[in-house]
Amino acid sequence: MYRSNTCGELRITDVGKSVTLAGWVQKVRNLGAMTFIDLRDRYGITQIVVNDSSSAQTRETASKIGREYVLQIKGCVIERESKNGKIPTGDIEIQAQEITILNEATLPPFTIEEDSDGGDDLRMKYRYLDLRRPPLQRNLMLRHRMAQEVRRFLDSEGFMEIETPFLIKSTPEGARDFVVPSRMSPNEFYALPQSPQTLKQLLMVAGYDRYFQIVRCFRDEDLRADRQPEFTQIDCEMSFVEQEDVLDIFERWAKHMFKTVMGIEFSNKFLRMPWIEAMEKYGSDKPDMRFGMEFANITSLAKGHSFSVFDDAEYIVGFAAPGCASYSRKQIDALTEFIKRPQVGGRGLVWIRVEESGVKSSIDKFFSAEDVREIASKLGAKAGDMCFIMCGPKFKVLTQLCALRLEVASQLGLRDPKKFAPLWVIDFPMFEWDEETQRFYAMHHPFTSPKPEDVQYLESDPGRVRANAYDFVCNGTEIGGGSIRIHDAKLQALIFKCLGFTPQKAEEQFGFLMNAFKFGAPPHGGLAFGFDRLCSLFGGADSIRDFIAFPKNNAGRDVMLDAPSQIDQSQLDELYLALKEVPQKK
Amino acid sequence: MYRSNTCGELRITDVGKSVTLAGWVQKVRNLGAMTFIDLRDRYGITQIVVNDSSSAQTRETASKIGREYVLQIKGCVIERESKNGKIPTGDIEIQAQEITILNEATLPPFTIEEDSDGGDDLRMKYRYLDLRRPPLQRNLMLRHRMAQEVRRFLDSEGFMEIETPFLIKSTPEGARDFVVPSRMSPNEFYALPQSPQTLKQLLMVAGYDRYFQIVRCFRDEDLRADRQPEFTQIDCEMSFVEQEDVLDIFERWAKHMFKTVMGIEFSNKFLRMPWIEAMEKYGSDKPDMRFGMEFANITSLAKGHSFSVFDDAEYIVGFAAPGCASYSRKQIDALTEFIKRPQVGGRGLVWIRVEESGVKSSIDKFFSAEDVREIASKLGAKAGDMCFIMCGPKFKVLTQLCALRLEVASQLGLRDPKKFAPLWVIDFPMFEWDEETQRFYAMHHPFTSPKPEDVQYLESDPGRVRANAYDFVCNGTEIGGGSIRIHDAKLQALIFKCLGFTPQKAEEQFGFLMNAFKFGAPPHGGLAFGFDRLCSLFGGADSIRDFIAFPKNNAGRDVMLDAPSQIDQSQLDELYLALKEVPQKK
Repeated sequence: MYRSNTCGELRITDVGKSVTLAGWVQKVRNLGAMTFIDLRDRYGITQIVVNDSSSAQTRETASKIGREYVLQIKGCVIERESKNGKIPTGDIEIQAQEITILNEATLPPFTIEEDSDGGDDLRMKYRYLDLRRPPLQRNLMLRHRMAQEVRRFLDSEGFMEIETPFLIKSTPEGARDFVVPSRMSPNEFYALPQSPQTLKQLLMVAGYDRYFQIVRCFRDEDLRADRQPEFTQIDCEMSFVEQEDVLDIFERWAKHMFKTVMGIEFSNKFLRMPWIEAMEKYGSDKPDMRFGMEFANITSLAKGHSFSVFDDAEYIVGFAAPGCASYSRKQIDALTEFIKRPQVGGRGLVWIRVEESGVKSSIDKFFSAEDVREIASKLGAKAGDMCFIMCGPKFKVLTQLCALRLEVASQLGLRDPKKFAPLWVIDFPMFEWDEETQRFYAMHHPFTSPKPEDVQYLESDPGRVRANAYDFVCNGTEIGGGSIRIHDAKLQALIFKCLGFTPQKAEEQFGFLMNAFKFGAPPHGGLAFGFDRLCSLFGGADSIRDFIAFPKNNAGRDVMLDAPSQIDQSQLDELYLALKEVPQKK
Repeated sequence: MYRSNTCGELRITDVGKSVTLAGWVQKVRNLGAMTFIDLRDRYGITQIVVNDSSSAQTRETASKIGREYVLQIKGCVIERESKNGKIPTGDIEIQAQEITILNEATLPPFTIEEDSDGGDDLRMKYRYLDLRRPPLQRNLMLRHRMAQEVRRFLDSEGFMEIETPFLIKSTPEGARDFVVPSRMSPNEFYALPQSPQTLKQLLMVAGYDRYFQIVRCFRDEDLRADRQPEFTQIDCEMSFVEQEDVLDIFERWAKHMFKTVMGIEFSNKFLRMPWIEAMEKYGSDKPDMRFGMEFANITSLAKGHSFSVFDDAEYIVGFAAPGCASYSRKQIDALTEFIKRPQVGGRGLVWIRVEESGVKSSIDKFFSAEDVREIASKLGAKAGDMCFIMCGPKFKVLTQLCALRLEVASQLGLRDPKKFAPLWVIDFPMFEWDEETQRFYAMHHPFTSPKPEDVQYLESDPGRVRANAYDFVCNGTEIGGGSIRIHDAKLQALIFKCLGFTPQKAEEQFGFLMNAFKFGAPPHGGLAFGFDRLCSLFGGADSIRDFIAFPKNNAGRDVMLDAPSQIDQSQLDELYLALKEVPQKK
């Protein structure tokens, strides 16, 4: 071993000990008679001092070293004259007796500090250097800790970790598959799994009862911000359970995670909110519950005042922003611009300023002060608040108002990354109507079971049917979701019919799983959590990228490895593949 | 929840309780007045009894059920009249009050018992049914338990689990890569990792100090028996370590695994055997140490007796098979046939039968009784033993004699799967000479460090240089292996030169990693264990396939999923790929 101790463990009680440390040079300060070296490893930083009590050779070596050199230091732990209260090793330093340069280092292209001076692209290219920075080290340590706690909990609850294959069959539904050409079966392809959904359901058919896996999944989608072509899922499935059982066990799991990893205890049951309530109160199926600003439907109050914008609207809805009565005209204009951006797509913003002295609004021309007060009161506004109101088609305007609510909350500093507001969103609709294709689609997937009491509407009014589906949401982000699956062949056939599948087409696409179900499928259900997302939530960050050791950029490239890249003609030949010319982009 | 208890937990102390069980029908015995149902789940089997104290409806339902039906049973725990000592629940049964058929089942195509009547192909196709069988359930539970213990130990030793990417860059060295065409970068490909070797070395450069991962790896090789195109590795790397540190920590790891999973304690240090000793004593770099039959070199003794086969041979070697003096001529002939098979490639077998009364051998024509006795004595034979001797080029004949040693040991029942004989094979040669291309190849990989004391021979006598490389071997199987890596740029350049790389070619193939090493690479080393193989070792089985939930067959196919398979033209078009015609096999 090149060291007796790490750079993070020596304390005042170790004074007098002879030690050997190894690590990287964080900083060298040459003060002439003395040289101070900050030596860094994963565990911390220890100060090394080289002075006239060090040998001539040691002083000579110390004069040659630079940032990120790898050193081995032999010396004695001594008490520092000027202590550094900011680091755990700040009471001591090492009086260097011997310095060995284990490796030299070219000057890194950016600073390796808490905050780096390197741009995104440069840091992605030299990811192995960026990964030396403390914030990234903390992120990956957090991820490690979380992975261990996920497994510890699930193992203790009788879940079995079972590895499912990565080279599987391409499925036409869902997102786009990555495919893998087969050399042994030329002209045929494997697909990389978008999730182990089918396989985990087969494990339930096989009687494994409780399954989990922390597993990589792959989706070849055009990448939006903060999407990765490969991502990690905590994938779980259980047999002989109903929705309540799944929510119960994974609520305990979430509390275990918050407690053991973050030291946060939730004594109450997590909030459970029906999908329709989440939409109507927060304009989102993943409401951020760290703050209020609940919506109220003021359609009936606001109509009939000769304000045609309202009168023509399907739905009029607003919320009160606490303490925002002081917002200037300019601030309001900026918010109006915000909701008019194409990403939000709002038409206009109505405001009501509520003060002790009275109300003032952008619709004073059409509404009496009393009417305005009544609306403000319906929105729950108190003196000092500002109401924001939008109108339009119901779900469209709700979504737009959600964007505004989050924007205002950000401005008010209410989206505190250290605060956590978890909830279950339940009672999702079974089907989503697609305007373009004029048909219903499964909101989760075609194996999701409807609520028994809604089965009666499956044929007459599919839009009314709610599913035994649930999402775990925290701080405005969907962290996970799942459903109770259908295990009854007749019900499954009916659902396929509702989704517009002929029996032939259903057989073609799902026959394999349906066939397995004939041999005794138990009632089962499960869920999956986005592990990258969960890590970034716990880490208090917006982006998942810094919680992944070697992420891809937005073009799906690993710029460090330079992948994807061209392959040899001989490889293509072996696979019986030919490249087709790619049209030049103009 | 569909049950109050599992089918494995009720005992005599539960008599009188009202319970609800759910599971699969293992067996139904209709005795007229009574029907017995064995209900099975992952946890065990519980007997259900339906008799005249059950309701008419319950009796009616019981009369309809068949094998593998999924049932929910409500009833009362009662003491059995005739107890079954073979199962933990054998003292009780459930007096059924209510039976609900949760799902019907088509009759499975093979029996779901400890031993099935289904052939391999059928069981692979219906893998989800085969997985219901107790031996497979035990295997996957063992694998789960082992995975948890691997992580528990490594976590406690400060190893961080870090996920490395699956979509990486194709590398021309080593085995064949599976490639993944990129849609966003058309005509370019990712490769699936053969192992995270490069990435874990980068993690060391990044300062992560101790890394591990239980990770899927991919190799597109022509499959030999018991190879899988995707397999799982326990992958580890450490910084600031020497070989002794790696062996020490992973010996403790192995002992932890044997103890916690198998209840087996190893109090002594594992044997460490230099590669050359393993080859000379056992003819293998992965010797099976569960039994003796050590080889002895009798070249000098056996030459010069006018027996031209020996006189012309480079190397003459043999071993004594204990208690085999009674082997008949027929048995010896069979062994001679065995070593002459093309897989072994031996030319002939010389034997010496050692009895109290004297020696008898197949070379009595050329050797005096005393000479034969001397040879037998050199081979360590005692009265009652049989000596087997072969000759030829040294390493060729050693390997052939190893096959014979294992065969004889199998016949003698010495290869007991419940006995474990772990050892480290160390001091591997750095290079392997390849006759065909007339050059040296790296025995591990080009980043393996040579022993410091052998560096002097790198240019003058490369074949003599030993590496800081090591294998973990148990029961004749290589379970894992690794090396201390080179972290010194000059030494690395010299190794590339020894391997016949021009500086240009080295830069082209390994420049990326070498470049990273310029920024301060610590001394580091590691190893990887074959997790599938480790599971089969612990499970006492030869094949890894039954320790993998959904394995591929020898043609690399998943016959259950029917993968690989054809994909849509539209998918090919999006990837700018065309299929080329595959010549028909004649």
